[in-house]
Amino acid sequence: MDITALLTSAGINIAICVVLLSLYSVLRKQPSNGCVYFTQRLVSEPVKYSDPFCLERLVPSASWIMRVWQATDEDILAVGGVDAVVFMRIVVFSIRVFIIAAMICIFLVLPVNYYGQDMQHKQINAESLEVFTIGNVKEGSKWLWTHCLALYIISCSACVLLYFYKSITKMRLAHITGSPPSPSHFTVLVRGIPWSPDHSYSDSVEKFFSTYYPASYVSHQMVYQAGTIDKLMKDAEKMYRMLKTIEPQCGKSSMPCCLCGGTTHSFKVLNNEAESVKSKTSVDGLQPTQREKERPAAFVFFRTRYAAVIAAQVLQSSNPMLWVTQLAPEPHDVYWSNLSIPYKQVWLRKIATLLGAIVFMLVFLVPVTFVQGLTQLDQLSHTFPFLKGILKQKYMNHLVTGYLPSVILILFLYAVPPTMMLFSAMEGNVSRSERKRSACIKILYFTIWNVFFVNVLSGSVISQLSVFSSVRDIPIQLAKAVPAQATFFTTYVLSSGWASLSCEVIQLFALLCNVFRKFILRIKEEPSNCALTFPHHTEIPRLLLFGLLGFTCSIMAPLILPFLLVYFFLAFLVYRNQILHVYVSKYESGGQFWPIVHNTTIFSLVLTQIIALGVFGIKRSPIASGFTIPLIFFTVLFNEYCRQRFSPVFKRSPAQVLIEMDRQDERWGTIEEIYNQLRSAYCQYPSISPDLSTAGNTSHHEDKESSQDPESLTPGNQLVKLNE
Amino acid sequence: MDITALLTSAGINIAICVVLLSLYSVLRKQPSNGCVYFTQRLVSEPVKYSDPFCLERLVPSASWIMRVWQATDEDILAVGGVDAVVFMRIVVFSIRVFIIAAMICIFLVLPVNYYGQDMQHKQINAESLEVFTIGNVKEGSKWLWTHCLALYIISCSACVLLYFYKSITKMRLAHITGSPPSPSHFTVLVRGIPWSPDHSYSDSVEKFFSTYYPASYVSHQMVYQAGTIDKLMKDAEKMYRMLKTIEPQCGKSSMPCCLCGGTTHSFKVLNNEAESVKSKTSVDGLQPTQREKERPAAFVFFRTRYAAVIAAQVLQSSNPMLWVTQLAPEPHDVYWSNLSIPYKQVWLRKIATLLGAIVFMLVFLVPVTFVQGLTQLDQLSHTFPFLKGILKQKYMNHLVTGYLPSVILILFLYAVPPTMMLFSAMEGNVSRSERKRSACIKILYFTIWNVFFVNVLSGSVISQLSVFSSVRDIPIQLAKAVPAQATFFTTYVLSSGWASLSCEVIQLFALLCNVFRKFILRIKEEPSNCALTFPHHTEIPRLLLFGLLGFTCSIMAPLILPFLLVYFFLAFLVYRNQILHVYVSKYESGGQFWPIVHNTTIFSLVLTQIIALGVFGIKRSPIASGFTIPLIFFTVLFNEYCRQRFSPVFKRSPAQVLIEMDRQDERWGTIEEIYNQLRSAYCQYPSISPDLSTAGNTSHHEDKESSQDPESLTPGNQLVKLNE
Repeated sequence: MDITALLTSAGINIAICVVLLSLYSVLRKQPSNGCVYFTQRLVSEPVKYSDPFCLERLVPSASWIMRVWQATDEDILAVGGVDAVVFMRIVVFSIRVFIIAAMICIFLVLPVNYYGQDMQHKQINAESLEVFTIGNVKEGSKWLWTHCLALYIISCSACVLLYFYKSITKMRLAHITGSPPSPSHFTVLVRGIPWSPDHSYSDSVEKFFSTYYPASYVSHQMVYQAGTIDKLMKDAEKMYRMLKTIEPQCGKSSMPCCLCGGTTHSFKVLNNEAESVKSKTSVDGLQPTQREKERPAAFVFFRTRYAAVIAAQVLQSSNPMLWVTQLAPEPHDVYWSNLSIPYKQVWLRKIATLLGAIVFMLVFLVPVTFVQGLTQLDQLSHTFPFLKGILKQKYMNHLVTGYLPSVILILFLYAVPPTMMLFSAMEGNVSRSERKRSACIKILYFTIWNVFFVNVLSGSVISQLSVFSSVRDIPIQLAKAVPAQATFFTTYVLSSGWASLSCEVIQLFALLCNVFRKFILRIKEEPSNCALTFPHHTEIPRLLLFGLLGFTCSIMAPLILPFLLVYFFLAFLVYRNQILHVYVSKYESGGQFWPIVHNTTIFSLVLTQIIALGVFGIKRSPIASGFTIPLIFFTVLFNEYCRQRFSPVFKRSPAQVLIEMDRQDERWGTIEEIYNQLRSAYCQYPSISPDLSTAGNTSHHEDKESSQDPESLTPGNQLVKLNE
Repeated sequence: MDITALLTSAGINIAICVVLLSLYSVLRKQPSNGCVYFTQRLVSEPVKYSDPFCLERLVPSASWIMRVWQATDEDILAVGGVDAVVFMRIVVFSIRVFIIAAMICIFLVLPVNYYGQDMQHKQINAESLEVFTIGNVKEGSKWLWTHCLALYIISCSACVLLYFYKSITKMRLAHITGSPPSPSHFTVLVRGIPWSPDHSYSDSVEKFFSTYYPASYVSHQMVYQAGTIDKLMKDAEKMYRMLKTIEPQCGKSSMPCCLCGGTTHSFKVLNNEAESVKSKTSVDGLQPTQREKERPAAFVFFRTRYAAVIAAQVLQSSNPMLWVTQLAPEPHDVYWSNLSIPYKQVWLRKIATLLGAIVFMLVFLVPVTFVQGLTQLDQLSHTFPFLKGILKQKYMNHLVTGYLPSVILILFLYAVPPTMMLFSAMEGNVSRSERKRSACIKILYFTIWNVFFVNVLSGSVISQLSVFSSVRDIPIQLAKAVPAQATFFTTYVLSSGWASLSCEVIQLFALLCNVFRKFILRIKEEPSNCALTFPHHTEIPRLLLFGLLGFTCSIMAPLILPFLLVYFFLAFLVYRNQILHVYVSKYESGGQFWPIVHNTTIFSLVLTQIIALGVFGIKRSPIASGFTIPLIFFTVLFNEYCRQRFSPVFKRSPAQVLIEMDRQDERWGTIEEIYNQLRSAYCQYPSISPDLSTAGNTSHHEDKESSQDPESLTPGNQLVKLNE
């Protein structure tokens, strides 16, 4: 590949991006697309779009970019919460570090690479891309110190910028202290309640906590197994939704009123049932059924935040599998179906899903290899003679060789996030944010392994599994393979990176659904569950993968950096826009994603340094190699420091902060109000009850992931689940 | 090596053991050796030995074995504490599991190995040992299922026996609940107290804990830097000890009285000083010095055990490097000199000592290889021509080739425990038991690496570092190497194992010191610091190493098992005797060693299974290989279960247990008594004050390790430390 080809490819991709972004700027002005591009606003205030038609609506404009650019961090915090700000920080971090890397690599390293061999240079635009990589520097060259210096500068600036872990820790703490009193601060999730033949789980919980936490225990709420009543209620809910869709005369703004009374009533019944377990005055005839439905898990409410944090952090029982406590997730964040899993199974589930994910990661390559085999049609028609006739047609040939492989590959890649999400759900995570984080880690490993390592290593060795048979040769192997694959990675950034952003902004799938509904089914009213939560679990691995590519290629093949910078600038605009306008934040993890980002960035840095070590070894520059080893050591040391200094705050809440908050509550006298909220906060069937009994605008939106998840309680697949 | 040679070697070693044990039975009857063999009794009640001389004293007898055999677990618990019982459990576990292994391997596996090839067998006593190993079974033999079955039986019985982790957990909890109220239960060690220009560390501690723990905070005691006054006091102590040694007329039983008044006074002064910081009424002129001497660490006393455990387990501050809390070690267990290390350094020290230990482990082989090079004298005299004259003498030649290498090797091996102990002290452990545990782990790794792996692998490959360059070939490599080395390991058990026990029981070093003192220096009175604590850190790795050898050789070369069983029986008698009579228990870790033992045993099992997998691979028995893989998986799963189920109790104290104890104290009204004890329990200079002010019999004994430790406060090396 030469410079002209690269520039052509860049030109095509830029053109595609410009077209798609212009299209977006037009589409977003159409009132009918409001539920695709302004879900955020639609959810908070259901406005009717009744703009008259004008020509302006068909002219592309850049005004949305201006508006996105002008938005402040405070706006994002207000709309998307801490998680959104942390996500934007990843983008900003990448922009900063790759600006520095681009400066140093383009002006210092690139000339050294270009003039590395005594050779006659062609015209610049006909020059091969290989000439710009470190492969062009001759062995034993005295100029390799520039690469070593660049490596030092990039590593140091990355570490300095990573040190704003500190500001994210502060942000997390400010989020805890600054947010209004949340029920989750006062609540502890207890699992592994021991079974006793004499009394129910509920009695056990009451007895345990009133014995050992007499001063601070308020009350508790059991987790119930899904049973017959729930099934009936869910069926009713389903019926209601169907009726609602069929009878549009109900009106847009007042739609949830129709069956309001009825369902509120059934919600009350359930609530009374839950309370009847606690108060012994209830009818005894009902109790056996109740007891059978209780699961060994409960939410326990405490008088103060500090009491809750103590109960959550202290080892309760001499059997560590019983009375397992942790701070409860936020009410919207609770993943109810996993709460009824016995705690004793959880460790086994974790191991099983880990093995499953690893097997999936390795086996994923089998279909891909098969698909890539499709490009060799001769062999295929040799194996399946009956295909010979079909494959002889030129059109079919083109289709099969040029188009089918990438379609199949993309389809397989699209299956990865739902699969990993399924694994994370089976793992037994008790909250949606935890499940998303777990899936994020799995997808990250998957992406790095299947995009980076497999691509890098498949060129140089035959079978991937035999790659790690020689541990000591890894730096050398990588050093040979990475510069050779740099061209591929550059085009990968151009095509996959830029295109994914354009697709993200234009929300193709939602747009098509909308068009189908509005113009084919002729349903005029807005759909009730079109709002999605931000897909951290797919977007963070993508950003981190591009970061990894940037770091590892930076001093090897600096030409990738400008394209990567364009990607990150575009990502900055697109993701900001999406956070401000499209996605809603139903629950918060409070920046829990940052440690993953930090660790991955450190991994990328160390990998870069190891590859550089191998390259310096191949190029016979002992001085550069010698200087690289302490750099690896200090990078690891810096990581260890950050792990000691910051990461505990992401795992446990500091007592000091919570005590201060408790005292503030006491001074302001807001504590009674919180107690009143507590009892109703954790309702096991929020998708039914608050949805229908309240104004109906907070729970209309569903998780993007829930539609891919057989265990979730979304209305779409309730019947499937109940009929199983 | 043939059977006759093995039996000869065994005979010689048995003879040596019998002689040494008989010698021991005679020596222990001599009253003059009381301070060597009955330190335990001497410490608790200093009896004068005034038996008249009789002939019986010179006749060896086995009565001590009878007495040791009759002792119960309760006796051991009373004398040596939980740690001693746990240690004896390791021996009992090994005996049990290797009895099963010996039964199955001798009667099932050994015949299969012996008749594995179609060959003419020689007379049994001229038979090579190779014939009894798995190497003798021919490829593709149908009898390999016996090995697989034996492996299953051994693994399952080991796992079943390991499951008495449960009883050790119970023992640990019973130790916590059953022991009299210990100050350590009420005390929290705080490190990383933030520095403030306005007030002293002591004020900060008081302010922090009375703000956040107003109901349960009692008082605190700062840790001080060793300063001038301490120096003077230590000099006085040293002078006192010297005077005491010179003037024996002071009398044995009343010896500490001489300077009693004076030092008690100085102890009081110190105590007042410490309190003057807290009470603001003291002379202000003294305060600046006091403040400078304070270190950012303190012992904080709480009203209840539960409050202490909360303060210890909860994350206190939003900066995890400040206000770091943990439950305090027992007063005798505190390692004072490490308390003044700033907490910020601890993680760095841990990494540095880890690196140091790894380097030591790898570099250890350099002198050993050099020493083994001495056996090739030709080369040596070629390198150093001036030695030619000396080396020509036959006697010198014998000395240098036959004797010097093993002496140097043994000297080097003796240097390992003190070095590892030094590393563990530098690591910043705050208690002696923690330091010992840390050293135990280091010595364990060292032993397994340098005795097992280096011996196994040095035969088959050239350089050790290149062994692990091929990960996939490890099972095959090990499978080739282990049966070949089985003969060496058998003789290692015979010589090193049995001999080490004889040496342990006879306490050669202490005996020689005693003889030197009594018959050459003519000092009649008993030495003041002859009692040692049990050297867990050297004995546990030794036992575990023999366990590893037993497991890995069991189905490969079953002939090792009878010798190993003799070793463990002997160990049972010897260690019981030593615990009952020789060693004192100054501090307890409460069975904290067990998780190390458990993990190492699992490691040994999995290693055995991996080697078996390799062997079955070489012998081309796919069925046996296929059955081994699930065994590995289930062993790992069992370990994970135990880790989840039992290990948290060894890390954190369960709240439930402590609350019950608090309530019991309240009912019995013993709590006031405990408060009174608390204030004086943690005294920074226990080697001076209680020693001289009390009867003087509890602190005369010093750690075995302390004599090898430059930082400890034993009288012998105080001046060295202070002059540095």
